[in-house]
Amino acid sequence: MPLVVVGSVALDSVETPTQKRDNVLGGSAVFFSYAASYFTTVRLVSVVGEDWPAEHTELLRSRGIDTAGLEVVPGAKTFRWRGKYLPNMNDRETLDVQLNVFAQFDPVLSEECRRSKFLFLANGPATLQMKVLKQCPGASLTVADTMDLWINSQREELGELLQQVDGLVMNDAEAKLLTGDENLVRAGHAIRQMGPRFVVIKKGEHGAMFFSKHETYVLPAYPTPDVIDPTGAGDSFAGGMMGYLAEKDSFDPETLKEAMAYGILVASFTVEDFSLDRLEKITRQDLDQRMEQYRKMLSF
Amino acid sequence: MPLVVVGSVALDSVETPTQKRDNVLGGSAVFFSYAASYFTTVRLVSVVGEDWPAEHTELLRSRGIDTAGLEVVPGAKTFRWRGKYLPNMNDRETLDVQLNVFAQFDPVLSEECRRSKFLFLANGPATLQMKVLKQCPGASLTVADTMDLWINSQREELGELLQQVDGLVMNDAEAKLLTGDENLVRAGHAIRQMGPRFVVIKKGEHGAMFFSKHETYVLPAYPTPDVIDPTGAGDSFAGGMMGYLAEKDSFDPETLKEAMAYGILVASFTVEDFSLDRLEKITRQDLDQRMEQYRKMLSF
Repeated sequence: MPLVVVGSVALDSVETPTQKRDNVLGGSAVFFSYAASYFTTVRLVSVVGEDWPAEHTELLRSRGIDTAGLEVVPGAKTFRWRGKYLPNMNDRETLDVQLNVFAQFDPVLSEECRRSKFLFLANGPATLQMKVLKQCPGASLTVADTMDLWINSQREELGELLQQVDGLVMNDAEAKLLTGDENLVRAGHAIRQMGPRFVVIKKGEHGAMFFSKHETYVLPAYPTPDVIDPTGAGDSFAGGMMGYLAEKDSFDPETLKEAMAYGILVASFTVEDFSLDRLEKITRQDLDQRMEQYRKMLSF
Repeated sequence: MPLVVVGSVALDSVETPTQKRDNVLGGSAVFFSYAASYFTTVRLVSVVGEDWPAEHTELLRSRGIDTAGLEVVPGAKTFRWRGKYLPNMNDRETLDVQLNVFAQFDPVLSEECRRSKFLFLANGPATLQMKVLKQCPGASLTVADTMDLWINSQREELGELLQQVDGLVMNDAEAKLLTGDENLVRAGHAIRQMGPRFVVIKKGEHGAMFFSKHETYVLPAYPTPDVIDPTGAGDSFAGGMMGYLAEKDSFDPETLKEAMAYGILVASFTVEDFSLDRLEKITRQDLDQRMEQYRKMLSF
């Protein structure tokens, strides 16, 4: 089943304790699409400026990603993010954000996108996410991501969105901020009671938690020793998860748990290099091999 | 198989964001013994002062713990620890430590203890741990815990100890301190190369990692919503792990992984109330039931 993602496409500048990269391919919708492309056809909806290097679009297309929804605005500049990781490689500081063309992003989805069964609303203003959601009344699985900025500035709108989506994916700090509860198990269930049928809390190097009415579980991250750049890990997780659900055309509890695991594994590859550099080198077979090791790790 | 533990017995004063308890039963060897008592006979070796309430010893005996090695020193005071948890309930501040009688602790093990196959050296000075180890040359599984204080003040002695023990258990911050590496996967293997055949890194609410020459794995914590007081969780983990190994009289890779899981589950009960209050209310059957849920949580 095709999967639609609406979110940011960016040029990232990333500093880690040992290395630095400027203006590399990034953005939530980019990591999401690339991660999901191992499982299904992804339709990417986003916007860039005329400074956008065409080879980036080519790279996405080479993985079968449908970039018809990627608007290039003449005279405008692409969204830019600059960040720096602390020595633990799990916490980061945002040094600079230039929304540029993304500030006016007001997507009108194609007929093809509107008919899609699977929709992911990547991190963005809740008002924007709601506008997109309204264009896809027939979608059978809609999942959103969010962040501190929108929790703080659009709490009411986010509350309305949570009544409308099937799932919410967010990180641990955001779940604590949204609920005011430092216990993630309680926070997860509290968010579920705000509307969505399921909630996923991403914990970075510590894996991810899942909450639905009848289930609460935690899956650990895959223990890779090669953490080079964590940028995009969370979006890769969501892409792997949604991609697998779309591939299986199902979101029953068993498939959701497998999807969580695939999300964790794609993310474990993403962090092994900057930007998409590591993902570019792997195939579905590498993911399945790591899945075998991961299942073995968790059985006893 | 009986299991010997040498470590501290203390009176703890604990402050959490919502509650406070003064002079409750604590200490590494207490949490360890009680946790291990669900699986095997434990011989506790420690020291207390004459302020030690006899009912605490009775409580330990009621679980079948052999307290013959618990020396009561007349005129002396018991080890006291006072700490305060931050709102996240994972990080804490030590407000006061009074070593008291524990400062002169220089245990001479009984013949029975010296013949024990399973030995746990709870957190203490490396010099003390080494003295105990030398009294048990026939032990087939020796495991030690340590902490920042000894890593900083007895690094050389700790290095010698690591050449002699089979396993080391420590928390994430201590593993980073010992190796200078912020990546726990690399840190775990680096510590293994200092001597022990296996290393376990405890990650609090995020579970535990295991490292041996041929294996690297992570098991998540059991997601309990009821975290009341995390004091003793790490020692309970070690007690559950070692207790299970002693019960099975084995430390092959399969048994070690099951033991890690039992350690995680005993710890998940420990944090659900102050001191031993929660453990006092559970049976082996409760542990086995939670194990069933835990296995289910990790299968997909």
